[in-house]
Amino acid sequence: KNWVLIGIVCGAAVLTVGILIGHFGITKGGSSGPSWVEDVAKDVDQSLIEKFLSEVDNIQIQENLRELTKVPHMATTAGDEQTVQFMLKRWQDAETGLDDAWREEYLVYLSFPDPKNPNKVTVGESTEKTYNPEEDDPAVVQPYAAYSPAGHPKGKLVYANQGKPSDYQVLNQTVDLRGTIAITRYGGAGRGAKAINAAPYGVIGVLVYTDPLDINDGLMSDINETYPHSWYLPPSGVERGSFNVQFGDMLTPYLAAKEDTYRIPAEDITGIPPIPIQPIGFEDAYILICALDGENAPQDWQGAFNCTYKYGGPGFKPTSAFNGSDVKLDIFNYEEVKNSSNVMGIIRGSVEPDRYVIYGNHRDSWVHGAIDPSSGTSVMLELTRVLGRMVKQGQWRPRRSIIFGSWGAEEFGLIGSAEYTEQYFAKLSERTVAYINVDIAVFANATLSASGMPSVQNIIFTAAKQVDAPGLVSTSVYDNWIKYSNRTSPAHGVIPRIGYLTGAGSDYAAFAHYLGITSMDISYTYDRSKTNARIYPAYHTAYDTFNYASKFIDPGFLSHQAIARTAGNVLIQLADSLVLPLNCSDYAETLEDYLKTAVSLYEEKLESRKISMEPLKRAVANFRSAASHLDNVIRTSDLANETPLKVRAINDQLMLLDRAFLDPLAFPDKYGYCQCIFVNCLAACRLTKAQ
Amino acid sequence: KNWVLIGIVCGAAVLTVGILIGHFGITKGGSSGPSWVEDVAKDVDQSLIEKFLSEVDNIQIQENLRELTKVPHMATTAGDEQTVQFMLKRWQDAETGLDDAWREEYLVYLSFPDPKNPNKVTVGESTEKTYNPEEDDPAVVQPYAAYSPAGHPKGKLVYANQGKPSDYQVLNQTVDLRGTIAITRYGGAGRGAKAINAAPYGVIGVLVYTDPLDINDGLMSDINETYPHSWYLPPSGVERGSFNVQFGDMLTPYLAAKEDTYRIPAEDITGIPPIPIQPIGFEDAYILICALDGENAPQDWQGAFNCTYKYGGPGFKPTSAFNGSDVKLDIFNYEEVKNSSNVMGIIRGSVEPDRYVIYGNHRDSWVHGAIDPSSGTSVMLELTRVLGRMVKQGQWRPRRSIIFGSWGAEEFGLIGSAEYTEQYFAKLSERTVAYINVDIAVFANATLSASGMPSVQNIIFTAAKQVDAPGLVSTSVYDNWIKYSNRTSPAHGVIPRIGYLTGAGSDYAAFAHYLGITSMDISYTYDRSKTNARIYPAYHTAYDTFNYASKFIDPGFLSHQAIARTAGNVLIQLADSLVLPLNCSDYAETLEDYLKTAVSLYEEKLESRKISMEPLKRAVANFRSAASHLDNVIRTSDLANETPLKVRAINDQLMLLDRAFLDPLAFPDKYGYCQCIFVNCLAACRLTKAQ
Repeated sequence: KNWVLIGIVCGAAVLTVGILIGHFGITKGGSSGPSWVEDVAKDVDQSLIEKFLSEVDNIQIQENLRELTKVPHMATTAGDEQTVQFMLKRWQDAETGLDDAWREEYLVYLSFPDPKNPNKVTVGESTEKTYNPEEDDPAVVQPYAAYSPAGHPKGKLVYANQGKPSDYQVLNQTVDLRGTIAITRYGGAGRGAKAINAAPYGVIGVLVYTDPLDINDGLMSDINETYPHSWYLPPSGVERGSFNVQFGDMLTPYLAAKEDTYRIPAEDITGIPPIPIQPIGFEDAYILICALDGENAPQDWQGAFNCTYKYGGPGFKPTSAFNGSDVKLDIFNYEEVKNSSNVMGIIRGSVEPDRYVIYGNHRDSWVHGAIDPSSGTSVMLELTRVLGRMVKQGQWRPRRSIIFGSWGAEEFGLIGSAEYTEQYFAKLSERTVAYINVDIAVFANATLSASGMPSVQNIIFTAAKQVDAPGLVSTSVYDNWIKYSNRTSPAHGVIPRIGYLTGAGSDYAAFAHYLGITSMDISYTYDRSKTNARIYPAYHTAYDTFNYASKFIDPGFLSHQAIARTAGNVLIQLADSLVLPLNCSDYAETLEDYLKTAVSLYEEKLESRKISMEPLKRAVANFRSAASHLDNVIRTSDLANETPLKVRAINDQLMLLDRAFLDPLAFPDKYGYCQCIFVNCLAACRLTKAQ
Repeated sequence: KNWVLIGIVCGAAVLTVGILIGHFGITKGGSSGPSWVEDVAKDVDQSLIEKFLSEVDNIQIQENLRELTKVPHMATTAGDEQTVQFMLKRWQDAETGLDDAWREEYLVYLSFPDPKNPNKVTVGESTEKTYNPEEDDPAVVQPYAAYSPAGHPKGKLVYANQGKPSDYQVLNQTVDLRGTIAITRYGGAGRGAKAINAAPYGVIGVLVYTDPLDINDGLMSDINETYPHSWYLPPSGVERGSFNVQFGDMLTPYLAAKEDTYRIPAEDITGIPPIPIQPIGFEDAYILICALDGENAPQDWQGAFNCTYKYGGPGFKPTSAFNGSDVKLDIFNYEEVKNSSNVMGIIRGSVEPDRYVIYGNHRDSWVHGAIDPSSGTSVMLELTRVLGRMVKQGQWRPRRSIIFGSWGAEEFGLIGSAEYTEQYFAKLSERTVAYINVDIAVFANATLSASGMPSVQNIIFTAAKQVDAPGLVSTSVYDNWIKYSNRTSPAHGVIPRIGYLTGAGSDYAAFAHYLGITSMDISYTYDRSKTNARIYPAYHTAYDTFNYASKFIDPGFLSHQAIARTAGNVLIQLADSLVLPLNCSDYAETLEDYLKTAVSLYEEKLESRKISMEPLKRAVANFRSAASHLDNVIRTSDLANETPLKVRAINDQLMLLDRAFLDPLAFPDKYGYCQCIFVNCLAACRLTKAQ
């Protein structure tokens, strides 16, 4: 009996142990909760970030740049096609490529100089002197103003400073501008605006040059001062450029420029120079300007030439060699619809494949474009190499999809990116979390520079804190940055200053202004205590080569590496974070700052017309309180254990924040400007005028 | 030894049994998969649908209607405020109310007749004869044309048929229209258009009446034929209406009409009559028209009066009592900015609270508005009673949020609903699954009628199959419907015919055309073999009362009940379905049908101008193939066991389908028309003209 009892007790005990083991000791496979529960709650993996940062390689970037800049690759030329093939090869590589990559073609309206009839100005053709063999490549396009009409205007020369409306107004008070040719310097007004502003005064042709004051810190001699001795622009260097005011293909506004697309007649295009315009080097400008007759121009019109800049008689001094001469422009530019390609690549998301983080840069240059844009393309290729390999090796797949865009024909007016947003408008609007633009990756090797919607400030800071500053010991990119550019935030104290994307300087324009997608632009840039150069001096010239980049801009490519690491880190965090790292309280801070400025500038004037700013103040206060509320929900919720639909709802709110500021009817005549907070000056001026 | 062995074997067996019991026999509570896994996969509960259908009560609807129509409730009047309070009381009821309900106010620009100076036409004031005491309520607004300017034009009378552009063109070939007053009949052209079309010919005033041919199947006598003996319009009955062409508050286009909102000057309003216009009864029209001189009007201009309709001399026959007389209009209308309310209510979603199904109808009427709009409001209140009680009793909470809207000032141009969409534009665009409109719930009690985007066809069919047809045995609303109106679909065979929402006849306009939200409009309607009435004859008159509705339109309120059941069923299925019951292959079928019509009408003409329709054909074919692909994904996936983010991605595609057809710049001068597939004729005409 005892044995039986003991047997039963032992049996019961063993059974209990068995039940406990069975219940707690063995994980239920498929039967207990679906397999995806863990996946949907996954957040950024910091060890992966570390792996990424360590694998980004400066020498890879340098070799990318060497390959990309072998030949000039102006949009739609044979050189451009070589870069298309190169990108495709890299992105389709079995070891380090993306999930998929393809070419997307558009038929776009471009403008070229005639190789058989070089554009000329009285004093001769505008050719750039050759210092190194690559600058002599037959594919180097002669300096010209894209979208300047052809024509042969001839007239007395006047000096019109930067060609701003106010410049022509001042000049017109002293000189009869009818029938004159105006010489202007870069800066102050957009390229095309210099001619558009001139035409109403009867000016019949415009020249534009880069004054050594604005680009060379005053230096002028190529014997010992400028390139090839330094990064400064040599006397014959000419900044090319697109002289249209709007962006996107001008024959197909709001529609992708495909074969079947309706095209407006070319004569209906607005925002292009109505009179011929031509860029020239400062060696030619020097001769012309110092020979001018007439009254002395105002102090702020004076440049770096060792003579007093005068208005022009109109025309030249009787004592000058050009006495009595007209200046003549012979412009042979022609327009053509050409086939331009974007190269697209994708890494598909695992959990939310219908959410996109887009990373892009243009591929086309004016000449070799080592800095603009190939520095950015080299960085992008290094990112895709490192990320592509992780994917191919099964180590990683992002939560959201990542799309890479290598845009075509940016130099002619952001055409490739604009056509892309037109073609996929609805899909991109509904699904894009953010757009990251890295065009010129490195202007100079002093400090990080970033612009974007205020909501991206935080994630750029997070990323920059995890990257070592190039060439410095124990200093992060963030720590270095804050020394060069900072501000005091009410919420965060002293922090680096982020700029706003108010203009259309690069391919972020269509994303930010047309689609209202949270966007940012990241680069390494100058120490402003060391130079006043408007931009790096070889910009848009034949001197922007691999040698120039590796010798004068970023020897060792460590700043390129820092940009690849920082921008790549931002990209991974946007793609992998459970809750999108976009901060709407930082947006509120910016709106409050804008409001403060608006109130101090306009409140008194408006009140005198019985217009109250109170509704605007209330709107900003409402935004702040909604932002605080959302922040609080995010902070206090245990989102990793919530239904993924709750997280998705919060992420949708964050993703669509900038879309709430869209008003497609706000500026109907200003192509692509629909986002009402960060409009550029011109659009804002229209508003003011309408009131 | 044996015992020990047996003990071990038994022990092992018992342990194994224990492990098996522990592992498979006991459900893991919190530890095995989160509690929400089941919730997110839940689909429509058919027993709940059955419960809903059984609880919808015709007598409740009848009593709702009685209460709503006690007094006239024209927008912003004291009667309107009574209905606001009634709606709020019902929606805030502790037993049968919604989660939350509130009033949303707008300051909107309305137009009224002057009670002290009644509008007059030569032959006397346009007053309606009183048959029942409620028609004599001092709050009955006199017949007038809202937004007709005040004025006192006097001139010879002409008959201009329906006031279409072609009518005035024909008339002008025979009669000099300068300085004339035109009498027109309702139909053929919009109300305001009858005056807008007239003004260019020099016409100085317009009368409009309802011809017995168009509304009364020819009957004219109130001694034995018309109301109060039947549903037909009595001789003195006058259709009121809004005579503006655009919808929404006209002083605040694209902005919600709040106190702070910028208002355009009233003189900048477009789309309103430039000359005075006044509606009159057919007893007055009869006297005027039968006295007209001049040539006989064409056959299709003839109405039901027992005389030949003539153009007018201009003016009257020498043999008539009016020989030589002018007709004079004395219009004293005035405009005023008034406070109009929407009443809003919500049942919050359990799984996807950030997805909305919106159900709405206007609340304001011209007079008592028993049919227009209170039949719809009575149905809505019955829906909210049944659903509200289920929620309050904890029996149900929808997967998605349900928003109910009781719109104000619809009669003046869909103002309440348009202001709502303007105020919450971004949120509604991003989150609204569908909009269901039930305005006039019952025009007549013969058959269901439905219009909507093609994607809603399937869910309306599903719902209509589950509801009994009123007064018929073993016949569903669907089976009854298909007998009255059907077509042969390539995919489905013979099915009931769904209309398209191409115009702005009710509050769906802002949702469908401005926001691009999948919308539908549902009602019970006529047996067309029994009447040719343009609309139910008491429309917009003082005779549209509870007595009229309960005696002539739907005695017993069984058709009201059928609409409540059908529309409520659609609402529940849209709110509760795991995968949204919207079908994009049905959309493809419609596009193919549109294309076929366009090709047969235009291909030859376009080809002669070297314009190809091939790109359009390719676009439709691409749509079809994408639709088939999506359908296939839905059909072949085990979505209840997939990550909820996969289901959400599919639902987002279905929800946003109509948004893909939005182009806010397509018709910039035509307020609110942004959806490019279902544009109304006027907008389409602009397109044709532009080409």
